[in-house]
Amino acid sequence: MENTAVKTPPVTSVPFMSAAELLDTWQGHRRLSRRVLEAFPEDQLTTFSIGGMRPYSQLAIEMIALAAGGIEGVATSNWDAAGRLFALNGRETPVTRQELLDLWDQITEQINTLWPQIPATRFHEKEMAFGQYEGVIYSSILYLIDNEIHHRGQGYVYLRALGIEPPPFWDRQ
Amino acid sequence: MENTAVKTPPVTSVPFMSAAELLDTWQGHRRLSRRVLEAFPEDQLTTFSIGGMRPYSQLAIEMIALAAGGIEGVATSNWDAAGRLFALNGRETPVTRQELLDLWDQITEQINTLWPQIPATRFHEKEMAFGQYEGVIYSSILYLIDNEIHHRGQGYVYLRALGIEPPPFWDRQ
Repeated sequence: MENTAVKTPPVTSVPFMSAAELLDTWQGHRRLSRRVLEAFPEDQLTTFSIGGMRPYSQLAIEMIALAAGGIEGVATSNWDAAGRLFALNGRETPVTRQELLDLWDQITEQINTLWPQIPATRFHEKEMAFGQYEGVIYSSILYLIDNEIHHRGQGYVYLRALGIEPPPFWDRQ
Repeated sequence: MENTAVKTPPVTSVPFMSAAELLDTWQGHRRLSRRVLEAFPEDQLTTFSIGGMRPYSQLAIEMIALAAGGIEGVATSNWDAAGRLFALNGRETPVTRQELLDLWDQITEQINTLWPQIPATRFHEKEMAFGQYEGVIYSSILYLIDNEIHHRGQGYVYLRALGIEPPPFWDRQ
């Protein structure tokens, strides 16, 4: 006997969120991360450290390099340019807060420009992100965001240790 | 003249990831967070602090309370029970690392049990999470995970300050 009841799809197969929602989420995090960078005192940005960790300028450069290279590689499948941007990550020269904020804003625009150009089938392609990290594209994008949240959270500790109240975590506007 | 070309959907309307992929991602983060908790020295867990921040035991309790209450509220739409679990958050009594790890494992199982029971339409319902945070369910779930990454990143600074090498961030197995 055939079961003619309408089947409800199992929750596991339904979309969790759309590409547009992911972009909103990402840019919300970027707005908060920008405020954390802005709150960081210029004279501590390239020097202050806890437990031998990198100063916040280096963490911010990592965020910038990963986002810039990541969106480029995801949108174009060309991870060479991404690798070039990623190499910023190793940049050791001191940078000013304003230089970092300007780079930040440039990448924010770049993400908004490239996002609609991502092929609709792209999020479930398997690829070596940055030519070296094997993964499905959606998980590589999540990794960029997770890495930003992770290092930004460390920035909160640096700010607290410097006696500065960080921007509220829940505010993404 | 009618355009008969097959239309490619704009990238913004396509799913970014499925519910099953989100569960995998969440549990991957939980495995890493569990290792950070395990790496924390028992004698510093409830006392060590930087810049007046909460000790790691309190951050871990917040992660546990949010995850436990969150999955309950998402799966059942009953945020009363969630609120009760959330109230653990304010718990001030000292706890041992093993108690926290046991609670952690209990919630991990709870998430795996309740996840397949989430109605397929649920992720885009608007609701007051924990009876107080207005949002669409997918974004409330992301918030739980983001909050865990944020505080875990702070735990990395605590560990480094204590001279302990934290578990690698990229490893989610």
